[in-house]
Amino acid sequence: MERKRLNIGLIGVGRIGKVHAEHLRYRIPRANLAAISDVNLAAAQECAARLGVARVEADHHALLNDPAIDAVVICSPTDMHATMIEEAANAGKQIFCEKPIARTLGEIDQALDAVAKAGVALQIGFNRRFDPNFARVRKAILAGEVGEPHLLHIISRDPGPPPIEYVRVSGGMFLDMTIHDFDMARFLIGDEVEEVYAAGAVRVDPAIGEAGDLDTALVTLKFKSGVLCVIDNSRKAVYGYDQRVELLGSAGGAAVSNNHPNTAVISDATCVHRDLPLNFFMDRYLESFLVEVAAFVDAVLDGTPTPVTGVDGRAAVALGIAALRSHKENRPVRLEEVK
Amino acid sequence: MERKRLNIGLIGVGRIGKVHAEHLRYRIPRANLAAISDVNLAAAQECAARLGVARVEADHHALLNDPAIDAVVICSPTDMHATMIEEAANAGKQIFCEKPIARTLGEIDQALDAVAKAGVALQIGFNRRFDPNFARVRKAILAGEVGEPHLLHIISRDPGPPPIEYVRVSGGMFLDMTIHDFDMARFLIGDEVEEVYAAGAVRVDPAIGEAGDLDTALVTLKFKSGVLCVIDNSRKAVYGYDQRVELLGSAGGAAVSNNHPNTAVISDATCVHRDLPLNFFMDRYLESFLVEVAAFVDAVLDGTPTPVTGVDGRAAVALGIAALRSHKENRPVRLEEVK
Amino acid sequence: MERKRLNIGLIGVGRIGKVHAEHLRYRIPRANLAAISDVNLAAAQECAARLGVARVEADHHALLNDPAIDAVVICSPTDMHATMIEEAANAGKQIFCEKPIARTLGEIDQALDAVAKAGVALQIGFNRRFDPNFARVRKAILAGEVGEPHLLHIISRDPGPPPIEYVRVSGGMFLDMTIHDFDMARFLIGDEVEEVYAAGAVRVDPAIGEAGDLDTALVTLKFKSGVLCVIDNSRKAVYGYDQRVELLGSAGGAAVSNNHPNTAVISDATCVHRDLPLNFFMDRYLESFLVEVAAFVDAVLDGTPTPVTGVDGRAAVALGIAALRSHKENRPVRLEEVK
Amino acid sequence: MERKRLNIGLIGVGRIGKVHAEHLRYRIPRANLAAISDVNLAAAQECAARLGVARVEADHHALLNDPAIDAVVICSPTDMHATMIEEAANAGKQIFCEKPIARTLGEIDQALDAVAKAGVALQIGFNRRFDPNFARVRKAILAGEVGEPHLLHIISRDPGPPPIEYVRVSGGMFLDMTIHDFDMARFLIGDEVEEVYAAGAVRVDPAIGEAGDLDTALVTLKFKSGVLCVIDNSRKAVYGYDQRVELLGSAGGAAVSNNHPNTAVISDATCVHRDLPLNFFMDRYLESFLVEVAAFVDAVLDGTPTPVTGVDGRAAVALGIAALRSHKENRPVRLEEVK
Repeated sequence: MERKRLNIGLIGVGRIGKVHAEHLRYRIPRANLAAISDVNLAAAQECAARLGVARVEADHHALLNDPAIDAVVICSPTDMHATMIEEAANAGKQIFCEKPIARTLGEIDQALDAVAKAGVALQIGFNRRFDPNFARVRKAILAGEVGEPHLLHIISRDPGPPPIEYVRVSGGMFLDMTIHDFDMARFLIGDEVEEVYAAGAVRVDPAIGEAGDLDTALVTLKFKSGVLCVIDNSRKAVYGYDQRVELLGSAGGAAVSNNHPNTAVISDATCVHRDLPLNFFMDRYLESFLVEVAAFVDAVLDGTPTPVTGVDGRAAVALGIAALRSHKENRPVRLEEVK
Repeated sequence: MERKRLNIGLIGVGRIGKVHAEHLRYRIPRANLAAISDVNLAAAQECAARLGVARVEADHHALLNDPAIDAVVICSPTDMHATMIEEAANAGKQIFCEKPIARTLGEIDQALDAVAKAGVALQIGFNRRFDPNFARVRKAILAGEVGEPHLLHIISRDPGPPPIEYVRVSGGMFLDMTIHDFDMARFLIGDEVEEVYAAGAVRVDPAIGEAGDLDTALVTLKFKSGVLCVIDNSRKAVYGYDQRVELLGSAGGAAVSNNHPNTAVISDATCVHRDLPLNFFMDRYLESFLVEVAAFVDAVLDGTPTPVTGVDGRAAVALGIAALRSHKENRPVRLEEVK
Repeated sequence: MERKRLNIGLIGVGRIGKVHAEHLRYRIPRANLAAISDVNLAAAQECAARLGVARVEADHHALLNDPAIDAVVICSPTDMHATMIEEAANAGKQIFCEKPIARTLGEIDQALDAVAKAGVALQIGFNRRFDPNFARVRKAILAGEVGEPHLLHIISRDPGPPPIEYVRVSGGMFLDMTIHDFDMARFLIGDEVEEVYAAGAVRVDPAIGEAGDLDTALVTLKFKSGVLCVIDNSRKAVYGYDQRVELLGSAGGAAVSNNHPNTAVISDATCVHRDLPLNFFMDRYLESFLVEVAAFVDAVLDGTPTPVTGVDGRAAVALGIAALRSHKENRPVRLEEVK
Repeated sequence: MERKRLNIGLIGVGRIGKVHAEHLRYRIPRANLAAISDVNLAAAQECAARLGVARVEADHHALLNDPAIDAVVICSPTDMHATMIEEAANAGKQIFCEKPIARTLGEIDQALDAVAKAGVALQIGFNRRFDPNFARVRKAILAGEVGEPHLLHIISRDPGPPPIEYVRVSGGMFLDMTIHDFDMARFLIGDEVEEVYAAGAVRVDPAIGEAGDLDTALVTLKFKSGVLCVIDNSRKAVYGYDQRVELLGSAGGAAVSNNHPNTAVISDATCVHRDLPLNFFMDRYLESFLVEVAAFVDAVLDGTPTPVTGVDGRAAVALGIAALRSHKENRPVRLEEVK
């Protein structure tokens, strides 16, 4: 067990930050969680104490200035991502950052420029790529099990809408929720989108519409290769978190279903039934949060490319911006319009 | 068994005509298959002999002029449907006609006018409404099992494209194939479409593109009530005929899967597998062809409305025309444009 | 359509007799339903009139004495099967007979002797062999998909117990209900049973126990080849007719599930559910009743062996007798004990 | 986080010992893994170093003599379980012990006597009770979802037989493998078995038979309450680890299926297929090993009964002994015979 470990500083111990911290501490043998920072120092201290992490800071610059820190995992609020990426790149740190990089392409490009100049690794937290179900579909495409892709469906529905206060500052459903699906589409097809048409509606809660957002949408993507894709989003599926994809290729189809807490099927005098799927992302995707960070650690230590790059992070945001414009102007929008 | 039976004349004994003939003869107790006509007299005679039907004609007018015939089932080629509906209406016959009524709204309106003037019943052969899977989804909506509809997916893929000669005269995929799905969308949601956006592609066979048609499409429908629907079409799913729908409503979701020839699941050292779904419409929808005609016979004898009207037949064609225009002009098309 | 058809006399128009009559008349092109007999002449007349069968008799001997009748389909009460088989064989008729042949091996042997002497064909009505699900499992074994069989489960449960009057004269659950499963075990494995152990219980209704019968059982079979099999019977599965098998072989496993009226799956805020399986044998096995008689007609006309022989009919009864003895004496019973 | 933690000494760091050690260290907040012992001191040291456990011993008595140790987790070879339980009880330690307690009832009774005298807690490692699938079936029974139990099936098949050297010292399939299923049957039904009938065979590998053991079996259990149960065992299911139960009750049925690595279903021109189930117990039951030990820790700290008692451990062994006798003498064996 003498091989080199990656010394990591974690920035931000909100919900997802805590998950990454625990994984880095206990379940990723090649990682050493060296320090934790949060503007809420007490929160950082509590987390560090529980995990036995020695160093705690309120200011993340302390981590960036520490030469013993090899890499940072950025879990701060979205509006700080781009700046922190730039700072970390300038400090020569390897970078894992939660999605989205930013909500404007200008901020993103500035951050990616800094990363390119510094020559550091950058991975964006599109964890769903590391989910066994979706990874299996990608593998089916790569292995030729389904031939050349023709049509892709992505179903992505939350169990319920976020608080209306959150909706107001979320950047809109396309950037807040669909962004994961844009990345999934690009990941599965392995190609770039040329044109977007978004049909949105307010079906779940009028208050969401009053806040200027949507809660229901069908987004059609045309890929450069000619593949057609539709993303189906809803802020509310009463039966729980609904996360599926389905692909038709020239040689076959691949589809995944939801994950359930158990496989028990009960038949009574009324119907045949089973328990609802896992309810939300912390249950459904817990394992993928571990695998993505382990993959980042491996990539950095082994000098291989990170599996989700800054380009991926930028592309998903561009698609979100295009979808929003398409919805507002009710017309197909070509991606070059939002460059 | 003394109750009145409906005396029926069948016009056209091609593939679907033969199916209707057999059902009318043996499996619909309230129907009496009194006569068969086909311009190909030998074909009509062969069919009549096999089923023990006494009267055979080359000219369908003989049936229309026979006062003993109560109703006609029109299974002629598409380009004769509208004229025959008009003639049958003028002759006072009750009418069951295969889809589509015609390929232009002008022809359809003329036929429907004649039906209205004559006050006869008209049912269009959208058999899928009578399939137990789709009927169950409709029932779920009507019974409030899934609440108010929000999002509908219709997957409708053929096992393989028709011959290229057929493609050339088919009227295009939207009128030839998607027309069933347009009707399914209207049937399930119980509302009219306001706007159509069609993204089409040639993915299966370049020869289809050279013939001026598509083989792959995603069609987005916006209903007046705000429901969003996407129809997924492909001319080729190598695993067989793929016919599914999936609905998300405010109180739940409903989804159907394909029908398989058996339920056997085999697990070997490689994978867990089962046989492919039923391959094409004659296997998959056989029962629905029986149920739709039985429903027509019941409606006429009982004096109740036919379950699929001329308005339904017209609406599906209007949607096909709108989809084609949307695809050609790459923009959403409102239904009032094609009125 | 000039090829020879088999002229058939149907004996007994109870529930299953009516089903066979309709199939023979309409859905088996190589059969000609020439005559119908029933001691209840009015019932025979009603059935014949509905199907357009010219000849009706109260006494089945009239059919046996008619040289124009090639074959008989015996659907009389069980206690007349053996005698009628013998008579029909002596009259040189080909024979299809409902199960069981009789409830004692002595009667069966006498009937089979007559059949052998006359050199006529005999097929016993074990219709489940012709069900697509079970046929697929048999095919998997024959095709080597699962290797050499090791373990077989047969689940066979009725939706509810028959009337207690029926229970009293039924011959007991093993001869009345399990007999189908004994045949299924022999059919799937393609081998003879050496030893039977039956564990029975009264769990559904004490009245069944008071009538001297069981309503719940696990029957273990040891085949000569060493395959182990367990049959699970219950007179009452509240969710409907439960008819499944599952096989483990050296190279894989094969399992079938129940047939449902539709494939719709509904997810609401409570659970994921679907409609109950088809409720009882007339729905579940309707198609197999057609296929078995068509196979009989083919075998006779083509001079090939019938697919379910008198030996098969005898073996199932012998297993029922062995099971009953095993249950009563609470010990494994070897088949040679009941020869 | 100031609440009391349970100080635990782990005895034996073989495969399952390592799993428990990791869970105790990282994933059970109320446990403190204070010390590790193994006769192979180097193995204990390696494990302790990796997990940051300060104390390591070759001799487990050092742990038993340490007043700071509250409880022991015994993962030594089977033939040492009973002695160690006795020693630990005499030392006043709370005890978690892997199954089986011993292979003779005499040894077990002596160990349980010591536990009773000492008044300490004892939990046996029947981890499958803590699996979400089986726990859901138990919950269905307790909640009355399926009414009163009638029939239970337990399917329990390994992906492949153990090495023949292991088979020779395993105590036989009934005590080595079926013991888990005996416990599962008692757990699900919540009742004691009255009689056992075991039909065994050698189907997988003749070498297993030559070693005096079986590789294939059907074991019928009659519970005191009248419930019938069959256990299906095979040492080799080529498609992987097959672990299912199915229950029929007076008001419904409950069945679980296997766990798969992903939910992807792939349809190609040949069949519809998915990946094989999780292959063996470390994958399939990993979570249950965590939950069982966490439950032990909770029970001890909260002063509540452990969820799997010494009585449970004894009963499973008694059933194994009865099954072996039944198989050898080919007759049903009542449980009182093996008391």
